Amino acid sequence: MANTSNLSDNRLVALDWGTSSLRAFRLGAHGQVLEQRNRPWGIMNLPPVPAGQADAEPGAAFERALQDACGDWLAALPSVRLLACGMVGSAQGWREAQYLDAPASLDDLARGLTVVQRGSGTPLHIVPGLLQRTGLPNVMRGEETQVLGVLADTSVASPGPVLVGLPGTHSKWVVAQGDSARRSIQGFHTFMTGEVFAALRGHTILGKTMQAPAAPDDAAFAQGLQVARGSDAALGLLSHIFSTRTLGLTGALPAAAQADYLSGILIGHEIASLSRLHPPTGAAPIPLVLCGEADLCRRYAIALQAYGFAPPTIAAQATVTGLWQIAIAAGLTTTLGAEPTPFPRSHAA
Amino acid sequence: MANTSNLSDNRLVALDWGTSSLRAFRLGAHGQVLEQRNRPWGIMNLPPVPAGQADAEPGAAFERALQDACGDWLAALPSVRLLACGMVGSAQGWREAQYLDAPASLDDLARGLTVVQRGSGTPLHIVPGLLQRTGLPNVMRGEETQVLGVLADTSVASPGPVLVGLPGTHSKWVVAQGDSARRSIQGFHTFMTGEVFAALRGHTILGKTMQAPAAPDDAAFAQGLQVARGSDAALGLLSHIFSTRTLGLTGALPAAAQADYLSGILIGHEIASLSRLHPPTGAAPIPLVLCGEADLCRRYAIALQAYGFAPPTIAAQATVTGLWQIAIAAGLTTTLGAEPTPFPRSHAA
Repeated sequence: MANTSNLSDNRLVALDWGTSSLRAFRLGAHGQVLEQRNRPWGIMNLPPVPAGQADAEPGAAFERALQDACGDWLAALPSVRLLACGMVGSAQGWREAQYLDAPASLDDLARGLTVVQRGSGTPLHIVPGLLQRTGLPNVMRGEETQVLGVLADTSVASPGPVLVGLPGTHSKWVVAQGDSARRSIQGFHTFMTGEVFAALRGHTILGKTMQAPAAPDDAAFAQGLQVARGSDAALGLLSHIFSTRTLGLTGALPAAAQADYLSGILIGHEIASLSRLHPPTGAAPIPLVLCGEADLCRRYAIALQAYGFAPPTIAAQATVTGLWQIAIAAGLTTTLGAEPTPFPRSHAA
Repeated sequence: MANTSNLSDNRLVALDWGTSSLRAFRLGAHGQVLEQRNRPWGIMNLPPVPAGQADAEPGAAFERALQDACGDWLAALPSVRLLACGMVGSAQGWREAQYLDAPASLDDLARGLTVVQRGSGTPLHIVPGLLQRTGLPNVMRGEETQVLGVLADTSVASPGPVLVGLPGTHSKWVVAQGDSARRSIQGFHTFMTGEVFAALRGHTILGKTMQAPAAPDDAAFAQGLQVARGSDAALGLLSHIFSTRTLGLTGALPAAAQADYLSGILIGHEIASLSRLHPPTGAAPIPLVLCGEADLCRRYAIALQAYGFAPPTIAAQATVTGLWQIAIAAGLTTTLGAEPTPFPRSHAA
């Protein structure tokens, strides 16, 4: 489909740049996505040096990834601002961006951007990560932007605190202030649920008897949840997971049900922790929001219900919205200069 | 050293045959070890078929492993009995030996041996495994023999129940009846502590920053224990383990301390479960025994103390003693026939 967006609509190039992929967005005057490009150029998988050449400086591979994803946009819009979040700001990224101490507001994040000069091009701005020092330390990098995007979602709008769950490899549960006048991240916890599941399935005896199910087995998932919270709860996680094998040995759990059963045990333990931190009963329980991959949000909603939480709001993927919010707060969208050339239609998606 | 044992002393060939190794023991009239051979021929690593040959029947690779380990013993002692325990009796072993229901006594195990005919040789007897059906099912195969060996240890002798801990890849905690007239296994639980540690270190982000310590770091181990049982206990295992990374990021936990810290978190969670199942305080707490690799027993003893348990007795490795006890109960040691040839000294260790 030919690109019909007017040049004057282009207000920001937003980058969601993680460990395994780079997603680039061209955003319009209201933050709407005019065009999106997905590339496999995560910070651990940058494009190689062309044959016969050598990188002149450390950021060259990042610049190459950026040019591959959206060099045409940058050429056509030479003064457009570039804002990125995620692991691109880690020690292994293009430039290490600071961790701000939590609690931190939208304005704190906008004031804390790290600026990377890019030769003749417009500089890249990187959103800081967050560090929580109370108790066991906790960090996030990318999720702070996602949560600010969730808070801007009108379906989530709340005058007070909300509890935002971001299920995944490293699940985060974030207490945020939803009031639009003082949006902020108050505190958060991390659970390695997704990565532990993958390690148990891929690298322990539990995976040896598993078969991939044709469709998600919600009954097996519920059975795993029940083990995590039921009469055997005292045994704990390290014992519960072994029942994936023993129920298989005794013929009570088919091979195709074992992965969902194990998923239920692990997510059940995560929600058990959440229910200790934020008891679901009480006069004014904190509103819950889930943001993540659809099937994972579905599973987490089932688990939350099993532990007595009210149904969560399911928010749309929100990283690009969060980048837009930060760009506005940082004044990155308001100073578009005159554009020298019309946007090249041949590149439009 | 030349073997000086008299032929008439040889009463049993005992085999501890697991997933990764085969240990063969020639035992004397009082169950003492006259000679030991260790081979890498675990059931998942049997010796290959010699070039140009083919195995005539399914057990051929197991017979080849047995001949390599102690074919000379069997040739010199053609009527000696052979008793094995461990994964050799699993579905992937030489012959699947039944699971007896727990509770089970020494006599139950001795009556439940599986007999494998070996052509012209003396048959192989395999100790049954145990299956506990109450609550989440639980299984053991090999540990039942180890526990019966522990109970025969005079330093462990108890007129009543004892709680035997077998730390390792899959830690077992076994309630056993120590009274010599009715030795039995009452019930048990399994914790995947060792295998989870290996999977987290080898296949998650936590291992990426770890360096092997020059010596066990007991301070880091104690710090991990404290996280498992301290003021952050509500967060649970899936959150605690992430602090291995965040304490590293904030400079609070050196790379060489991270493995022992993670070990402390995991063993701490195992002992937390144990303390819920068997509270350490009370009028007559159950006596504790540990049996396993020395440094692991040392760590578990520290963890037990942190949770308020009395110091455990450390028992010697006991599988061969357990095999001897079962052989006596099964009458396998009492009918040695005349031996046709003297034991070949050239093979003696």
